[in-house]
Amino acid sequence: MYDVVTLGETMLRLAPPDFERLEQARTYNVTAGGSESSTAVGIARIGLKTAWVSKLPENPMGRFIANKVREHGVDTSHVVWMDGGRAGVYFLEFGSAPRASQVIYDRKGSAISTLTANEIDWKPIFQGTRLFHTSGITPALSKNCAEATAQAVSEARSAGCMVSFDMNYRTKLWSPENARACLSELLKQVNILITTRQDIARVFGLTGAPEEIAEKLKEMFNFDVVAVTLREPISVQTGKWTSMALADKVYRGKVYDLEIIDRVGSGDSFTAGFLYGYLTGGVEKGIAYGDAMAALKHTFPGDLTWVTPEEVRDQIEGQGARIKR
Amino acid sequence: MYDVVTLGETMLRLAPPDFERLEQARTYNVTAGGSESSTAVGIARIGLKTAWVSKLPENPMGRFIANKVREHGVDTSHVVWMDGGRAGVYFLEFGSAPRASQVIYDRKGSAISTLTANEIDWKPIFQGTRLFHTSGITPALSKNCAEATAQAVSEARSAGCMVSFDMNYRTKLWSPENARACLSELLKQVNILITTRQDIARVFGLTGAPEEIAEKLKEMFNFDVVAVTLREPISVQTGKWTSMALADKVYRGKVYDLEIIDRVGSGDSFTAGFLYGYLTGGVEKGIAYGDAMAALKHTFPGDLTWVTPEEVRDQIEGQGARIKR
Amino acid sequence: MYDVVTLGETMLRLAPPDFERLEQARTYNVTAGGSESSTAVGIARIGLKTAWVSKLPENPMGRFIANKVREHGVDTSHVVWMDGGRAGVYFLEFGSAPRASQVIYDRKGSAISTLTANEIDWKPIFQGTRLFHTSGITPALSKNCAEATAQAVSEARSAGCMVSFDMNYRTKLWSPENARACLSELLKQVNILITTRQDIARVFGLTGAPEEIAEKLKEMFNFDVVAVTLREPISVQTGKWTSMALADKVYRGKVYDLEIIDRVGSGDSFTAGFLYGYLTGGVEKGIAYGDAMAALKHTFPGDLTWVTPEEVRDQIEGQGARIKR
Amino acid sequence: MYDVVTLGETMLRLAPPDFERLEQARTYNVTAGGSESSTAVGIARIGLKTAWVSKLPENPMGRFIANKVREHGVDTSHVVWMDGGRAGVYFLEFGSAPRASQVIYDRKGSAISTLTANEIDWKPIFQGTRLFHTSGITPALSKNCAEATAQAVSEARSAGCMVSFDMNYRTKLWSPENARACLSELLKQVNILITTRQDIARVFGLTGAPEEIAEKLKEMFNFDVVAVTLREPISVQTGKWTSMALADKVYRGKVYDLEIIDRVGSGDSFTAGFLYGYLTGGVEKGIAYGDAMAALKHTFPGDLTWVTPEEVRDQIEGQGARIKR
Amino acid sequence: MYDVVTLGETMLRLAPPDFERLEQARTYNVTAGGSESSTAVGIARIGLKTAWVSKLPENPMGRFIANKVREHGVDTSHVVWMDGGRAGVYFLEFGSAPRASQVIYDRKGSAISTLTANEIDWKPIFQGTRLFHTSGITPALSKNCAEATAQAVSEARSAGCMVSFDMNYRTKLWSPENARACLSELLKQVNILITTRQDIARVFGLTGAPEEIAEKLKEMFNFDVVAVTLREPISVQTGKWTSMALADKVYRGKVYDLEIIDRVGSGDSFTAGFLYGYLTGGVEKGIAYGDAMAALKHTFPGDLTWVTPEEVRDQIEGQGARIKR
Amino acid sequence: MYDVVTLGETMLRLAPPDFERLEQARTYNVTAGGSESSTAVGIARIGLKTAWVSKLPENPMGRFIANKVREHGVDTSHVVWMDGGRAGVYFLEFGSAPRASQVIYDRKGSAISTLTANEIDWKPIFQGTRLFHTSGITPALSKNCAEATAQAVSEARSAGCMVSFDMNYRTKLWSPENARACLSELLKQVNILITTRQDIARVFGLTGAPEEIAEKLKEMFNFDVVAVTLREPISVQTGKWTSMALADKVYRGKVYDLEIIDRVGSGDSFTAGFLYGYLTGGVEKGIAYGDAMAALKHTFPGDLTWVTPEEVRDQIEGQGARIKR
Repeated sequence: MYDVVTLGETMLRLAPPDFERLEQARTYNVTAGGSESSTAVGIARIGLKTAWVSKLPENPMGRFIANKVREHGVDTSHVVWMDGGRAGVYFLEFGSAPRASQVIYDRKGSAISTLTANEIDWKPIFQGTRLFHTSGITPALSKNCAEATAQAVSEARSAGCMVSFDMNYRTKLWSPENARACLSELLKQVNILITTRQDIARVFGLTGAPEEIAEKLKEMFNFDVVAVTLREPISVQTGKWTSMALADKVYRGKVYDLEIIDRVGSGDSFTAGFLYGYLTGGVEKGIAYGDAMAALKHTFPGDLTWVTPEEVRDQIEGQGARIKR
Repeated sequence: MYDVVTLGETMLRLAPPDFERLEQARTYNVTAGGSESSTAVGIARIGLKTAWVSKLPENPMGRFIANKVREHGVDTSHVVWMDGGRAGVYFLEFGSAPRASQVIYDRKGSAISTLTANEIDWKPIFQGTRLFHTSGITPALSKNCAEATAQAVSEARSAGCMVSFDMNYRTKLWSPENARACLSELLKQVNILITTRQDIARVFGLTGAPEEIAEKLKEMFNFDVVAVTLREPISVQTGKWTSMALADKVYRGKVYDLEIIDRVGSGDSFTAGFLYGYLTGGVEKGIAYGDAMAALKHTFPGDLTWVTPEEVRDQIEGQGARIKR
Repeated sequence: MYDVVTLGETMLRLAPPDFERLEQARTYNVTAGGSESSTAVGIARIGLKTAWVSKLPENPMGRFIANKVREHGVDTSHVVWMDGGRAGVYFLEFGSAPRASQVIYDRKGSAISTLTANEIDWKPIFQGTRLFHTSGITPALSKNCAEATAQAVSEARSAGCMVSFDMNYRTKLWSPENARACLSELLKQVNILITTRQDIARVFGLTGAPEEIAEKLKEMFNFDVVAVTLREPISVQTGKWTSMALADKVYRGKVYDLEIIDRVGSGDSFTAGFLYGYLTGGVEKGIAYGDAMAALKHTFPGDLTWVTPEEVRDQIEGQGARIKR
Repeated sequence: MYDVVTLGETMLRLAPPDFERLEQARTYNVTAGGSESSTAVGIARIGLKTAWVSKLPENPMGRFIANKVREHGVDTSHVVWMDGGRAGVYFLEFGSAPRASQVIYDRKGSAISTLTANEIDWKPIFQGTRLFHTSGITPALSKNCAEATAQAVSEARSAGCMVSFDMNYRTKLWSPENARACLSELLKQVNILITTRQDIARVFGLTGAPEEIAEKLKEMFNFDVVAVTLREPISVQTGKWTSMALADKVYRGKVYDLEIIDRVGSGDSFTAGFLYGYLTGGVEKGIAYGDAMAALKHTFPGDLTWVTPEEVRDQIEGQGARIKR
Repeated sequence: MYDVVTLGETMLRLAPPDFERLEQARTYNVTAGGSESSTAVGIARIGLKTAWVSKLPENPMGRFIANKVREHGVDTSHVVWMDGGRAGVYFLEFGSAPRASQVIYDRKGSAISTLTANEIDWKPIFQGTRLFHTSGITPALSKNCAEATAQAVSEARSAGCMVSFDMNYRTKLWSPENARACLSELLKQVNILITTRQDIARVFGLTGAPEEIAEKLKEMFNFDVVAVTLREPISVQTGKWTSMALADKVYRGKVYDLEIIDRVGSGDSFTAGFLYGYLTGGVEKGIAYGDAMAALKHTFPGDLTWVTPEEVRDQIEGQGARIKR
Repeated sequence: MYDVVTLGETMLRLAPPDFERLEQARTYNVTAGGSESSTAVGIARIGLKTAWVSKLPENPMGRFIANKVREHGVDTSHVVWMDGGRAGVYFLEFGSAPRASQVIYDRKGSAISTLTANEIDWKPIFQGTRLFHTSGITPALSKNCAEATAQAVSEARSAGCMVSFDMNYRTKLWSPENARACLSELLKQVNILITTRQDIARVFGLTGAPEEIAEKLKEMFNFDVVAVTLREPISVQTGKWTSMALADKVYRGKVYDLEIIDRVGSGDSFTAGFLYGYLTGGVEKGIAYGDAMAALKHTFPGDLTWVTPEEVRDQIEGQGARIKR
């Protein structure tokens, strides 16, 4: 029924304006952010039908989060609502050289961390769905979340959906050992892995050129595709973005120069672009859309992307930076 | 060493501007708020020496809270700092008739809820201190908090400090039964009780005229003074404020007409004014200062008061509402 | 397929903050507002399935408008998108006594004003739908809009949908004569009329007690129900709200005291509440829900309501204005 | 050449938003404010030709002040520019009951306080001008300002201009004795006095009904007209406004109910309306325009009025508070 | 009577803050912007007497636009006011690499587009005026605007004014063919052409080095001076600016490095500086002032410049970027 | 009793947001700023006990300034409060290339400028204090301030405190001759001089390599240490920072690349870091902490630093610019 279904936590994001510190600020900008909803939003904005599945508290903050996702046209009707729970919160402080940006999570005990394996009825959701996507954050949230993630992946495969997975290793949620133990099982059912060199090094201890790492991973888990995003910071506010993918062969993306407004969610935008491109054309199109989507995301305040399909195509075709009028 | 020492939780307060709903807002105003720090701030601003004791996470939000309290001259050097904890958060939405204002707490697992009875070394704090104040929120936070509160009260009495206590019953923290069981012990050591008719009715089932309730409570726990604040809402944005106290006799305060900007913390401002007046003059002065402080608090955005001693005196002496220039 | 489908224009609303004048302001708050989408949002928020149909420009302002409607769970998939058009704009200035609030429309040539009778395929939309709602604004937008409205009403009736209609007379869009001529035809197919005494006086020249007017209108057009909203301004920022309805008998609503934050859209919230109540219980429930929804709307910034079903029930059951915590 | 020329100080006005205290605020709203420029702006907005004369520092704050006055169409070409001086500043805090609004001046040593009697060439300014207006603030600024004011008044009379004067007694600038000594001379040359009961009581010790006071003053100084503004505060945010004038007979204005957004400058708006009405019709029209202008001013943020001629006429004719659309 | 008179549309400019997208923003910053008023403001700020002529709706937005121009000392007394019209609006979104800034016009049917050839009485305006300036936007607004522009140019020449013209080709207003047809006539009466390589290429199909293009244009239309602005974007937020002019010989400007805050209106600031320099010194001074004015404009938010004469001179003389204190 | 005590003026700082000009802004951000309080704050934040001594008006602006300093844990109990005085004000405008940032002082007649030599009782303050710090601004404020500074320095030395001094030459406060005359006496009692090449050139006419200048100064005044900060602007928003110090030998700091948010107070942060490092380790540690503190200060809005000890250590140890999560 959907092109892509994603599962994961979305938090309330609180961020001071104008490079103020968290300790200093007297106002926070409030948005919603989470890897898998960002991906669902990105795919929906450029034209495929998506749903995002999660568990949220039945309170204003929970509704805020669902609203912000469905505002972009993502189906949120499968979200599980919890009485008396809390929404995860994350605090974000924007840096400038030599001060790095900083994220502080306050997500413990959030509604989704209570999600259990039987709580979501995946059958109707996966019926006719092409691809299921989640990330390494979801199983890391709690033991029962790990079980629920495993169940979702299994049911997706049973229903004939492809499975894509973003490694998204979070040191504050689990140790590399626990991550490796859990993911080693999960990844066996995954078709498409999207990751970074840092995450692979931390979780699987693999280092080297992206092509080599991708090759090893592909062999280990028999993936159809391994995509590696390649971010090169220049300063806090400038950088470069590209990516590569290994499938039948190695694909390399275009390098984008970035004036960074808000880099959070750029990896998820890559995933959105990659999955869109992959589902509508293949790996080469996936890389092209992924890089354009990721590069553009750096320019939008908030976790969620606000691209239009036309803008993504313009980037791929190399439009310049002149004002448009 | 201090005139007044208070103990309790202070949270990060997040509130949308301009009567926006929590579900609707895209910015929150960020302040710090908690009953006992508000009281310490109020007393410090009108001239006595105070300290506020609490437990906070060693992160920007924890530092923000301590900063906002010491900004007013309250000593925060006895705050216990916790690695890896979280600050309690509360969300506040301002209403207008017929919509009531709304508070949503997200305080579970906050740093102070892990406070244990032996964690604070009260001896040096209470040496030479005249009065210790806390409220019914502190023991309600967790079982160990209840023990820590009992210990603090005991040590205060042993050190020769008076003890004052604001009932502050919070339905979301405990049941009336649990509150009654815990407070019945605590209140035996309390000299000054400050409360509302609503809280007494809910916790002790006492109803009737304020004088009667006060009389019964005074007998039950042998208080020196029972002060009852008397708030009369007219609409969401207007109301009246007064109070009464029972000690050797009944004292009645002046009635203030209110255009309410932010009523949170007005009870704590009453307590601050009352304790200031009581310590520097007696019950009559206490009621006069308490009511003036409480009435003025309704006009300041945020939990904390920003009065000056001169303004409190002007209110007591009945200055009008003409612009001052 | 839907409980309620609505048709109409939604504009970009630009309003200065803090009672600033339009001539004076240097920032505008940007929201989306239009009678029929407000109604669809209101109904969706309290639990029925709704769709809003319109025509919007394929540009950021058009997408903004659709986003803000679907953020509340209203289906916007039947909106017609136009290349190169413009979104209607309205400017709103908030007054305070003795200065009235002021609205300036800049809606001429908006995308929806180009809507033609054959542009929307109503059959799939009305299949299984219970009620179709629009207002007197839609046919007033242009000659072709009048035809498109007539067609929609006809198709609704053919498909077995009830039709409800809010008179919503706008002096700046057409003369009373033109309105009367057009509406006299349209209203013949309408089951439920919702209106004000002012609009009936201006368009049909009927004056008198609401019951009398409602009686005359009911006879003229053979309505099932006529509901009349009764607003009583006290000042610019305070007032009272109630309503009455005539069906098998006269129904009268409760009177609400209002501290007005933003009264735009309160009539549409009445309609939403009324239609919800009517569809789920009947006229009496309709009036109760309509008045509660309308009263609450005065307290939310923006055209759109942000109620929860629980809050509406609390108002109907008479909850007070104490802060909730 | 002008209908009205005014002389006086205009300061940078710094005011916290949202009822924040000055001690608490982290942003100030910045506007320009001064009695005589407010009057010139008011008159210009409803249709006469005005100039405002002053002395300002040649720096961004000085330019800001002149800009804000000429933005409304007042001629500022006769302003004297000073190298290295400072602009007067005033801090404004908005109160709510029981807290009064508060003004703190920081105007000592401002550019205009250095103005001397020969610094402005009044001849070309007064040629063909109908009326010169200033207030009791200008001579109070410094000894040389008192001389410069006296010279301006003399030259105005020599040039055949009427002179109008607003008492505007400021306790922080001079004592009642000094004010009386200075003004007793000045007022001999004044045709129109505009004042309040408070100012007359403080400066001339006259008390009683407005008619009586006006009668005594008229006799003392042989005024053509004495106008007395009559403000009646209800709370900090609500009040009533009216006025009376004594010329050939007593004239009484209409009473306006006020929801006060910003009352600063309302007296100056009265003056503007009165002078406009007086110059274009006489005392009765003056009172009508003065009261309408003053009442409306309470609803505009900032010292300066933003009325249109049509709005003033609507108030005089008694338009209601319904939203206009 | 004036040094420079300009004619053209000025719109309400609506722009989200903080790099937010138009689709995303909930507030817009509101300013006024239009090529010819920007030029008039620039010239007025550095010391010559200017008037701006236009047609505006008699509503708050129209008054806002005129206010913002006269705030800088430009004479707006010749603006034609229209009942019931609308102000043109433009939406501006600020980009960052790789996202370009974006402008969306909503100017159709604006008041000035109804301007006809006989509506303005140019004779008194041009009497004693040295130079008339307009741009290619004005004739592009409508057929009657093209006629009104032609008439203004003719009358200017008859009155002995020089005429300067900024090509300002706007693809959304007309085709290159229509522009060429219209401008080929107009330019015959123009003394000073100011343009860019892009506009010349699009309208006249001329490409090559700036000197060559300028030479060809000068021959075609017998201009006294052709000035070509040369912008070199580095990223969206950084770039370089310079210019050249051809008169008796080729003049080349200084190259400025830019950290771009808001580049809109920088071309108009060049024109302002160039015309000021040309009128007070000649082509060389024109280029120097034009480049300094244009470079500085990139650093001011809004279309209008806020330079002082001293700052322009400092730039020309090469002051550095140290903080001034 | 303190590790470091500082003496000096702190002003109200008013700065437009978002690169707006002072002439253009309608809001100012309000903070407190002054060299010596910034230094005290910096030292307190990284772990030593500090007091800041000054003289402030007893009004909201005076209290604001003291609050903002004690918010960071600096002892303000020795501040002298003045009835009826004023707080110094400074206006700050943020530039971008080619427009430099700009500071305008309005500090004449501020409370501290009335400070006299006998007004502060230094004995209890200096008892047990390790170091006293002030800067060249303090003696420049007035003749009596120069005397009060000399007295403070003398008493510090008598009490056995080290004295450190930041040259901080301000052209707007005094001439190089007056500065040289005054400082030549003062510096004889100074142990640690912190300065820039520009200030030494202007006051003492010494130019050349930093090592040479430092050597000459050390000889002239027999300093223990001379530290020279070395700022290299690249554009207005980017630059490099390092420093050197001469004691027993030459020490050189690390070079930091800066994306500048707010450079005001970076010199004071250097001083804070240097003094912290010097007192806890020696010159090498001083330079390391000074440079890290100064570099980080460029990234915090406002004069005051918001560093944590951990962040300073991370910079010294070379942590990268990756987002931390």
